[in-house]
Amino acid sequence: MNDQAYMKLAIQMASATIGQTKPNPAVGAVVVKDGAIVGMGAHLKAGEPHAEVHALNMAGDKAYGATIYVTLEPCSHYGKTPPCAELIIQKGIKRAVVASLDSNPLVGGRGMEMMKKAGIEVKVGVLEKEAKALNPFFLHFMREKRPFVTLKAAMSLDGKIATKTGESKWITGEQARLDGHRLRHSHDGILVGANTVIADNPLLTTRIMGHARHPIRIVLDTTLKISPEAKIFQDDSAETWIITGNVGEEKKAPFVKEHVSIFSLQQPQNIEHILELLAAKGVQSLLVEGGATVHGAFLQSRLFDEVVSYVAPILIGGKDAPSAFGGAGFSTMAETQHLEIIETSVLGEDLKIVSRKKGK
Amino acid sequence: MNDQAYMKLAIQMASATIGQTKPNPAVGAVVVKDGAIVGMGAHLKAGEPHAEVHALNMAGDKAYGATIYVTLEPCSHYGKTPPCAELIIQKGIKRAVVASLDSNPLVGGRGMEMMKKAGIEVKVGVLEKEAKALNPFFLHFMREKRPFVTLKAAMSLDGKIATKTGESKWITGEQARLDGHRLRHSHDGILVGANTVIADNPLLTTRIMGHARHPIRIVLDTTLKISPEAKIFQDDSAETWIITGNVGEEKKAPFVKEHVSIFSLQQPQNIEHILELLAAKGVQSLLVEGGATVHGAFLQSRLFDEVVSYVAPILIGGKDAPSAFGGAGFSTMAETQHLEIIETSVLGEDLKIVSRKKGK
Repeated sequence: MNDQAYMKLAIQMASATIGQTKPNPAVGAVVVKDGAIVGMGAHLKAGEPHAEVHALNMAGDKAYGATIYVTLEPCSHYGKTPPCAELIIQKGIKRAVVASLDSNPLVGGRGMEMMKKAGIEVKVGVLEKEAKALNPFFLHFMREKRPFVTLKAAMSLDGKIATKTGESKWITGEQARLDGHRLRHSHDGILVGANTVIADNPLLTTRIMGHARHPIRIVLDTTLKISPEAKIFQDDSAETWIITGNVGEEKKAPFVKEHVSIFSLQQPQNIEHILELLAAKGVQSLLVEGGATVHGAFLQSRLFDEVVSYVAPILIGGKDAPSAFGGAGFSTMAETQHLEIIETSVLGEDLKIVSRKKGK
Repeated sequence: MNDQAYMKLAIQMASATIGQTKPNPAVGAVVVKDGAIVGMGAHLKAGEPHAEVHALNMAGDKAYGATIYVTLEPCSHYGKTPPCAELIIQKGIKRAVVASLDSNPLVGGRGMEMMKKAGIEVKVGVLEKEAKALNPFFLHFMREKRPFVTLKAAMSLDGKIATKTGESKWITGEQARLDGHRLRHSHDGILVGANTVIADNPLLTTRIMGHARHPIRIVLDTTLKISPEAKIFQDDSAETWIITGNVGEEKKAPFVKEHVSIFSLQQPQNIEHILELLAAKGVQSLLVEGGATVHGAFLQSRLFDEVVSYVAPILIGGKDAPSAFGGAGFSTMAETQHLEIIETSVLGEDLKIVSRKKGK
């Protein structure tokens, strides 16, 4: 077996733990001595040992003079565990092969540097693309210090999200809606505007077969006009956050419940401030299921990464029917936000189009 | 060779004449006697002999007792030429194999009936789908008595056709625009609203390499507010029609030119009346390059067959930015126009989506 084959095993182990390691990334490690695997492991849960620790423990004394393969650069700082780079040095590892560097610009490369200084032969970039795909949101979060933001829109072929009277059930078919639930499953938080809660009174939970992870339900409500009777406050199967402005305590009181948190911002309409708050709370990925106004605000801020459009082959028409991105909009073609289409697929009768900001 | 192989040859000959037979359909015919081809031909030009006549002429006396393969049911009426079904009978053809019946409900099947009564063995449906694909617009026109209507829209990912200030150059890229010219080439007429002529002053000709056919330029202008200085009146490379209301002769006078025709309708906004006029003038296929209002009117009338959307991966946003289908629009989801997506393709950075009314 060569470097790629050992790294592939490390990636496979990490891949199996995606979701359960949050907020930590999924990471796998393999230790090889004289052509034989002497240790392997993956990080299983936040607070528990990193992948390297598991693999080195299994290797025991055989780690001395061995090669370690890790999907993500070994950490160089004291966190909940001592730095893995240090452990690798102590154990007498001779060669370290790493798939991708830490995306945090403050610490990226430091683990490699520590090992190199200790005389370990280091190699970076083996199956890098595959390794990065394990933790896209984590890597983005560490690099940008804000959640990876996905804007979701279910629209007609003519870009409408409802008729002029506000009817929107159902524009897309069952398969597209199921895919939307998978999107919820993969994100830490799901954000809607107050108008969506008032108009649709949604549960905002993930409804898919098997183990479904419910994202944190986040409602943007500048003036706290939603009702405490809304389903998201009655149902406690998911954490529910309200982001509002400077509203009085008496107005907040009816919402106080175990699963509900209320955050007051000076500028509750400022997308940058909202994302700063969410980042501080550890939300690494955010699915925005906004109406026209919320989507319009994210577009204007340009603080988003991906757009997932479900396009149904129906025509709604009408200049007063809301389209997916409302608000002020851009005035000139030069200002418009350019994306690139990275995926197109057919879901039943509908089309799914995934677009990203260029270079993302 | 079997029936399919001879029919395939007939279709290949017809296929080579697509475009040059207008307003007639492209048709091919093959005559086979004792396993050898004794005649073949295609209809070449309106006013000239039909495909069967060419093929039977070539066969001469050998037609007696032979089999004839024709891509479209032989005609049964006296038009510019005597009925082909009669000629086939006179020549002593023993067996007639036809790919598709005449789609005109008044005469469809009559040619077959005439031949059957004369004792000819008839067979219908060999390579029917391929044969029908030769003349989709013609077959539609004969069946529905109105042009096949294609609505074209170049829009952003959020369904906008311009920014709120009206800027729209260019939403889609070069490849999508070239494909739009191919669409023009394949239609008899291209229809725009007066506002498009005023805002963009387009030439509305087909700009593709090789022999480009210019469709008839048709402008909807209820009050005749466009300028006679517009490019479509200065350039005489394509016929130009104005459909307007009851406007005075003095208002029409500045538009009078060899390549310009003016039609006055009692209800110039009524799509059904417009299509009746165009059908009476022999327009079998119409490409609507409308703005929001014109597209909205066609949607409301439901008198269209296909929608070709070019979707660019940009976000324009804004509740006041026009979307592809304006006008009144539908109020309820039940009223919305359902289509089915029949083609999705990538053109450069853009996406082309072709949808049709179900069952078309």
